[in-house]
Amino acid sequence: MNYLTKTRVEAFSDGVFAIIVTLLVLEIKVPHIEQHESVAELGTALLGLLPKILSWIISFLIVCVIWVNHHRILAQVEHITHGLFWLNALLLLWCSFIPFPTALMGDYLGNPLASFVFGCILALMALTFSLIRWYALRNQQVLKKTVDLSHYRRATTRSVVFGPSLYLLGGALAFVHTWLSMAVFAFIPLYFIVYSAASSVQSADE
Amino acid sequence: MNYLTKTRVEAFSDGVFAIIVTLLVLEIKVPHIEQHESVAELGTALLGLLPKILSWIISFLIVCVIWVNHHRILAQVEHITHGLFWLNALLLLWCSFIPFPTALMGDYLGNPLASFVFGCILALMALTFSLIRWYALRNQQVLKKTVDLSHYRRATTRSVVFGPSLYLLGGALAFVHTWLSMAVFAFIPLYFIVYSAASSVQSADE
Amino acid sequence: MNYLTKTRVEAFSDGVFAIIVTLLVLEIKVPHIEQHESVAELGTALLGLLPKILSWIISFLIVCVIWVNHHRILAQVEHITHGLFWLNALLLLWCSFIPFPTALMGDYLGNPLASFVFGCILALMALTFSLIRWYALRNQQVLKKTVDLSHYRRATTRSVVFGPSLYLLGGALAFVHTWLSMAVFAFIPLYFIVYSAASSVQSADE
Amino acid sequence: MNYLTKTRVEAFSDGVFAIIVTLLVLEIKVPHIEQHESVAELGTALLGLLPKILSWIISFLIVCVIWVNHHRILAQVEHITHGLFWLNALLLLWCSFIPFPTALMGDYLGNPLASFVFGCILALMALTFSLIRWYALRNQQVLKKTVDLSHYRRATTRSVVFGPSLYLLGGALAFVHTWLSMAVFAFIPLYFIVYSAASSVQSADE
Repeated sequence: MNYLTKTRVEAFSDGVFAIIVTLLVLEIKVPHIEQHESVAELGTALLGLLPKILSWIISFLIVCVIWVNHHRILAQVEHITHGLFWLNALLLLWCSFIPFPTALMGDYLGNPLASFVFGCILALMALTFSLIRWYALRNQQVLKKTVDLSHYRRATTRSVVFGPSLYLLGGALAFVHTWLSMAVFAFIPLYFIVYSAASSVQSADE
Repeated sequence: MNYLTKTRVEAFSDGVFAIIVTLLVLEIKVPHIEQHESVAELGTALLGLLPKILSWIISFLIVCVIWVNHHRILAQVEHITHGLFWLNALLLLWCSFIPFPTALMGDYLGNPLASFVFGCILALMALTFSLIRWYALRNQQVLKKTVDLSHYRRATTRSVVFGPSLYLLGGALAFVHTWLSMAVFAFIPLYFIVYSAASSVQSADE
Repeated sequence: MNYLTKTRVEAFSDGVFAIIVTLLVLEIKVPHIEQHESVAELGTALLGLLPKILSWIISFLIVCVIWVNHHRILAQVEHITHGLFWLNALLLLWCSFIPFPTALMGDYLGNPLASFVFGCILALMALTFSLIRWYALRNQQVLKKTVDLSHYRRATTRSVVFGPSLYLLGGALAFVHTWLSMAVFAFIPLYFIVYSAASSVQSADE
Repeated sequence: MNYLTKTRVEAFSDGVFAIIVTLLVLEIKVPHIEQHESVAELGTALLGLLPKILSWIISFLIVCVIWVNHHRILAQVEHITHGLFWLNALLLLWCSFIPFPTALMGDYLGNPLASFVFGCILALMALTFSLIRWYALRNQQVLKKTVDLSHYRRATTRSVVFGPSLYLLGGALAFVHTWLSMAVFAFIPLYFIVYSAASSVQSADE
């Protein structure tokens, strides 16, 4: 009874991811206009929501990328130990916080601090993924026997170098220009989607 | 490890659908009245909520129709590839947005733009279903061996012709008259419910 | 492929029930007081929330009773047909609406219309349970072979007589006195809890 | 059919826990500032949210601890009886209430009553865990045959002594000093995390 049931940990995590992804839209409020039936006035009000819609789409895609990463890591795990559960809980903590910096960035698009907070939370989230991988390498009994350890070690190093640093870079660039920061935040999930699609064609060893 | 676990993708999607369907009601706020104990005043206030309740019911039924379609498509899928996952994520993106145009239509029932936005989002959602079907036809290894491909191809063509165009029609008709638009939006799920019940009696090959 | 996967229908329904039960508490807002550190003022403000807390507890218990009933009915079902799915969707429609009349009753405890609306929604929900049972009797292939049909028929009749009428009675009694209405609403889940516990001890045939 | 399906009870409970943990963050609202692009003003406003963020993190960790406890107890259960279901429902009732005292404590950090209410709700939650264990000891057919009853009995006694009393102590200490109270509330999950990690290394008998 030292191990936690993997299916229940997955169900709990999937529930959290599904709720985050759906709650994000609640920050986009219906605008108030004076002339209820004016198409022009409602159109202008809806256009004013574009920054919020943009930050919502970016967050949506990032949470989906997190889901894929989470799925990939748990697919290689044999047992969920207490250590692994609490690292997973730490990951869910950062994830469940995402609606806040998303709303912050949507409300204060011109303010570099908003994008910086967004980048920092995601960097902490990405760092927790690296911690989970590092924990698995130190406690190899949690990994499935089929996992290629040298491959896993390289992927872990790569995850530390790219994940947190890219999100921090995105956050920091907001002090140069907001749209530069947004471009990096949009690039990360898009790159991941293209890369993961390409790598799933090329190799069959992960 | 090239394939994503189908049960986790289903659990994630089911979670998103369940949350959308339940969040929809949050847009219907308890009205504020002056005389707390007046039945007449509360009754009038509740009647004023009818447009919101109507757009809530329509959205609720449409999300249920989406769930049935989603179930039907995944029941014929053998493997979830990365391409399929991201098309599914795109579908969930449009779906998780539904509470916003639903609230918009409820708040601005007389404004044709509100119904038009509602129709456009649902047309994009329906188009993504066609994309998923089209992807499966191009990557037939994702489909189960039992699937009748010529039947699947015809259903895919039909899904492009009917799905997005009906929702767009509903949205466009709002510029003629709001209730015409509402009638189309209500007709789509009702037709689907009757049609799917009928076809499930007639044939056993899908 | 005429049948919908029972586990996915259950997962979807469980998701909806879990969200309803958790959303109910969102209607209880933190009160605003003038002197932030005053225990007396905060205490008075919290006591003012008692009607909301009471209607929250009643709704919470009622949704749990619905869950048990839903579980019981699906446990006797072999196949989910399209007809059954849409009756289930109708049930979820009423259920997902529950947060609204709950908040209404909490805000307007002294107003009989609020309790009456609450009772009507629950009566419609209970009626849908009877419809599901009646549908199963008309389409006996959806029921498991082990189901005792004469027993099922009697339970169906009983569900029509007791379920909707008790909730309607509770709602109607609000026009006599609010607390009478509340007492009936509280009695229904409590009676069910005691009765189901007792019947599960006495008999083993359902 | 006297027993409720354990997987559905787990799915329902996991759904509730996942939603609670994710809803907690909704209480942290984006602050309103005058100069939209001022980093200094936004920074000050964000620092003002620290009490809310702190109470959010504490509640997040406590709900995760509840999840682990819930998992551990259900892992030793063979059958879910109606009695067990309703005790579980009572547990979920207290849990689903947690967002309210969390928001209360975040809004009124200096007010001892807020922390006291937080502590009381968690004490009632912890007491329900003891009730579930006590029920299982009285109805031993619900426990798996592999469970060591004398061990289970000791753990039950321990759960009554430590769980509710620690939370009550935390609540009561708020009348001495707010931060003393916060320290106890933060200590409980942290102690549990370290203890459960340590005990899972030392022994393999639970």
